[in-house]
Amino acid sequence: MRIRKALITAANPRQRTLPLQVLVDREGVAKPALQIILEEARGAGIEEYVVVVCPGDEAAYSEAAGPYRNRVEFLVQPRALGYGHSILLGRALLEQEDAFLHLVGDHLYVSRNDRSCAEQLVAVASAERAAVSAVSATREALLPYFGTVGGRLVPGGQRLYQIDTVVEKPTPTEAERRLLVPGLRAGNYLCFFGMHVLTPLIFELLDEAEAAGHGEAGLLLSPSLDALAGRERYLALEMAGSRFDIGDRYGVLFAQLALSLAGRDRDLVLRQLLELVADA
Amino acid sequence: MRIRKALITAANPRQRTLPLQVLVDREGVAKPALQIILEEARGAGIEEYVVVVCPGDEAAYSEAAGPYRNRVEFLVQPRALGYGHSILLGRALLEQEDAFLHLVGDHLYVSRNDRSCAEQLVAVASAERAAVSAVSATREALLPYFGTVGGRLVPGGQRLYQIDTVVEKPTPTEAERRLLVPGLRAGNYLCFFGMHVLTPLIFELLDEAEAAGHGEAGLLLSPSLDALAGRERYLALEMAGSRFDIGDRYGVLFAQLALSLAGRDRDLVLRQLLELVADA
Repeated sequence: MRIRKALITAANPRQRTLPLQVLVDREGVAKPALQIILEEARGAGIEEYVVVVCPGDEAAYSEAAGPYRNRVEFLVQPRALGYGHSILLGRALLEQEDAFLHLVGDHLYVSRNDRSCAEQLVAVASAERAAVSAVSATREALLPYFGTVGGRLVPGGQRLYQIDTVVEKPTPTEAERRLLVPGLRAGNYLCFFGMHVLTPLIFELLDEAEAAGHGEAGLLLSPSLDALAGRERYLALEMAGSRFDIGDRYGVLFAQLALSLAGRDRDLVLRQLLELVADA
Repeated sequence: MRIRKALITAANPRQRTLPLQVLVDREGVAKPALQIILEEARGAGIEEYVVVVCPGDEAAYSEAAGPYRNRVEFLVQPRALGYGHSILLGRALLEQEDAFLHLVGDHLYVSRNDRSCAEQLVAVASAERAAVSAVSATREALLPYFGTVGGRLVPGGQRLYQIDTVVEKPTPTEAERRLLVPGLRAGNYLCFFGMHVLTPLIFELLDEAEAAGHGEAGLLLSPSLDALAGRERYLALEMAGSRFDIGDRYGVLFAQLALSLAGRDRDLVLRQLLELVADA
């Protein structure tokens, strides 16, 4: 299965400026978050990028893409029609692919080992020839923030699960009934990490959901991923890493701290951090 | 001595976007750094602001000033003529004042007690009826980054010094020879904090320095402050607080962290911080 392109969604009007914010990457170089996201994909061997934006944002995003701007194609979501709809727009450029990497424009990812999160995910998808969503074991209290999957460990697979159910922001009761995954610590669930390898079947399923009128209040992705699990082998990989929603109040702070502590300037930052905390 | 206006310099072409960056203030509200700086002045009872900017930056700064935009007057520095020159521009609007507060647009200040740094400084200047620069005891290794003062403790004054010498970025030898201040820990010097209450005499001194051709490579402030010390009583107040240069590579990171740890969300941020460091 060849994974050549990445789809990055950044068309939520409340989040349109997030990928333009400047952070310092692991190498100590200041650059817009968008560039850090594109480099996450590039680290997985992907060099063509499709970015879904709000009308009028192409120029600012193109500039923020820096050295990658010639490898970015923009798709414009004319109005806020939902996350699922912004992925469906990708159909025009991705329908012919075996599969594609999908990242959200308001998340940054920090791997806990020397392979980036996207690299871990794409390697598993290629080897398994299947759609794979990155997930993270997450405490029940955080379920209101995430799409959550149910399923079972793939025998012999490391941190790899076969998904049978996907529910967007489940209640604790619903999660306990449908999303308990054997092998996880009690009170933990597998929640989305904001990174997926998807097959073009997702476009068909989103299209059906939209035609059935499920998108009236904004088309979601999770119900179509739930449908995907019923149509083809669909896996979840527990990530050795962390994701940071830079739309959260302190998202940029902790993303920056995690990048720095995982990077070239670790010692410098850790020393200043300890001084500051000792003072505070 | 009445201190009614603040002068904020933000016309260094390499720093022009820094005050526009969004941070979360102590109350947990996301806003541009410029607003946090204006609120620092407001906390000291100052409600009129003069901001020196690069040509073309007025609109972006006006927007960044948010609710204070009607209290901001802009002065435009036509080219990069130096920090001293950007202060000299303030003469047009500040010459009639008893004294004015001066903050730099690329620093954020976090007080260690319940009075803001500007409030501490303005209170002392008003009581002493003199120009006062905020300073911070700083290790010798950091002298290359700061203007540094020499002087002696004011009898009975708390952390208050009479300045007799100001040197911009002194060498260690020069500092040891001219800037040792009795009472400081060995190897420490009083370096500028990026916050001053100045009298209009500074305009006359900067004007003289410029006329004497000292501004050819960019007019500095420190030599004119050195001259000020020879002309009137000029004090230094050791600040109970920290300053963060948001132009430093990790300046925004540590400014944000310090603001958060001094603010409403301290417990939340401290908990996440410890989790992150334990993981990293």
